[in-house]
Amino acid sequence: MKKFLNDVDDFLHESLSGFAEAHKDIVHVNLDPFYVTRKKINPNKVLLVSGGGSGHEPLHTGYIGQGMLDIACPGHIFTSPTPDQMIAAIDCSQPKNGVLFIVKNYSGDVMNFEMAAEMISSEHKTILINDDAAVINSSYTEGRRGVAGTVIVEKVVGSLAEDGGDLESCHRLGEKVNRNCSSIGVALTSCTIPAAGKTTFDISESDIEFGVGIHGEPGRKREKIRDADSIVEDMLQVIYKDFEDKNLALNASSEVLLLINGFTSTPLSELYLLFNASKKLLNNKQIPIARSLVGNYTTALDMAGASITICLLDDEIKKHWDTRVLTPNLRWGV
Amino acid sequence: MKKFLNDVDDFLHESLSGFAEAHKDIVHVNLDPFYVTRKKINPNKVLLVSGGGSGHEPLHTGYIGQGMLDIACPGHIFTSPTPDQMIAAIDCSQPKNGVLFIVKNYSGDVMNFEMAAEMISSEHKTILINDDAAVINSSYTEGRRGVAGTVIVEKVVGSLAEDGGDLESCHRLGEKVNRNCSSIGVALTSCTIPAAGKTTFDISESDIEFGVGIHGEPGRKREKIRDADSIVEDMLQVIYKDFEDKNLALNASSEVLLLINGFTSTPLSELYLLFNASKKLLNNKQIPIARSLVGNYTTALDMAGASITICLLDDEIKKHWDTRVLTPNLRWGV
Repeated sequence: MKKFLNDVDDFLHESLSGFAEAHKDIVHVNLDPFYVTRKKINPNKVLLVSGGGSGHEPLHTGYIGQGMLDIACPGHIFTSPTPDQMIAAIDCSQPKNGVLFIVKNYSGDVMNFEMAAEMISSEHKTILINDDAAVINSSYTEGRRGVAGTVIVEKVVGSLAEDGGDLESCHRLGEKVNRNCSSIGVALTSCTIPAAGKTTFDISESDIEFGVGIHGEPGRKREKIRDADSIVEDMLQVIYKDFEDKNLALNASSEVLLLINGFTSTPLSELYLLFNASKKLLNNKQIPIARSLVGNYTTALDMAGASITICLLDDEIKKHWDTRVLTPNLRWGV
Repeated sequence: MKKFLNDVDDFLHESLSGFAEAHKDIVHVNLDPFYVTRKKINPNKVLLVSGGGSGHEPLHTGYIGQGMLDIACPGHIFTSPTPDQMIAAIDCSQPKNGVLFIVKNYSGDVMNFEMAAEMISSEHKTILINDDAAVINSSYTEGRRGVAGTVIVEKVVGSLAEDGGDLESCHRLGEKVNRNCSSIGVALTSCTIPAAGKTTFDISESDIEFGVGIHGEPGRKREKIRDADSIVEDMLQVIYKDFEDKNLALNASSEVLLLINGFTSTPLSELYLLFNASKKLLNNKQIPIARSLVGNYTTALDMAGASITICLLDDEIKKHWDTRVLTPNLRWGV
């Protein structure tokens, strides 16, 4: 294992300290317990709180700021944050109009956010993200996993909360976006957890893991690497099937957001190639790509690979996708 | 080699096609010959033209847009673009107030941009970027290499050109920013050129290449991997010495921009850890970090590793760093 680090036990502390300094105009980082908030919290809006194990950066800390999250609680690498982090962050924010938890569906996260929710006095609701169409139940999950669709939920709900949407409306919109998102990922390499010091799984020079999770969890099958067009075709088949199962129509009269998400070690040029491959196939089905996002938005430490997320849009989702966002790692509406 | 690709000869065409579709609100991509322009060129401003071999994305195509570049000409991977690309792009832009070429100092790029410059009728000047303090002369270079400081030059000069700065002023400012930038990189792994199908260089599991170039060119020395603080200390020593040699003072009364640039495969969390390590050492010398940038801005295909760039600021550079920029991969001033 070769990584830039000092003592492995200090990794998160040092990384968050660097993040704090680099983005001190936008965020405030608390180091004991770990939590990150907007530099200036507005207690009158619905407080959007997310978090999860570290190692998926920029998720979630990089999405704190105007038009997106208020708080993120980072756990250690691939380890759930604990309720004390969430409670401390919420206590210092003094929300007057409720708390909305945005939680990726992993058992540890679900349990810890539930415990925090029980212990705060504010009104609260939770959106469980489970956009990964690859597998039902897996290493850390009962039900489907939450992956890159999380970014879309956080952006869209963040916009409504910024506009003054109430807890009920924010929750309803988040549930809709989660339902409208379907994702699937492919790994070319494993990732390496610093404290483990070795790769999470073994994979040969000629194989890919089809349907991999963002912690290196197994997907649907181990396959030989093939040309990108053929891999993307199989990925989109899984997504199409998922929309069918959800009874959501994908056709010439639907509009979609296409997110090509890198896990870290796949060059941007390859992510654009995957975007192109996806575009050709969506064009064949006459499905219009109305919005797009390409880059490393929900990563898996140093894994090489990528996921495709399709989010079925409607006027409400489109409107809130397009609004101004100003966070360390997602910015537009300039 | 495991990469997302189809026929290796189609790689650039397919990647640029995806880029074109994903950012069609900002850029126009011409596929024969390859060049990328703003969607709407303003012929009355100084036309900023850059380019170079592909494989460093988002450099340069990702920096086209308001407040930054007008044109970028991508060559094949790690291969200079040719004069016909630059000439075709400039011809279709019909600049009325001159052309400023921003060229990284590699022999192929220098030669091809010089040939293009001789063949266009517009008034023109060239800024040669050579911020890499690692080595003088190397595989593809006479003199020092141009690396991540390029992004800072393109941003700052882009702002002045957007403001209506004339060719002379833009050239002068670019030369100043280049002189004020000093960079050094470290590789943990090699990169792999798709057409070569194998790593550019061999490196053991316990070594780093100190002073590596963005094509995997050799740096100053092959060393054992050590803790990040110690690597960063050696990197900053090279940068401090370079500022000394240039007769530019770095001290408590100077302000700097600190750029931690990833080459691709190093996770964002490690880049922030490097930012933190750099910050501690700059603090020791009481050098204030007034601006910061952390991420993959000048990459080397799939290489793991990172570079540090320090840019000495003054009021003029700060002002133009802070202005609004709206490109596919650099956005602020929201």
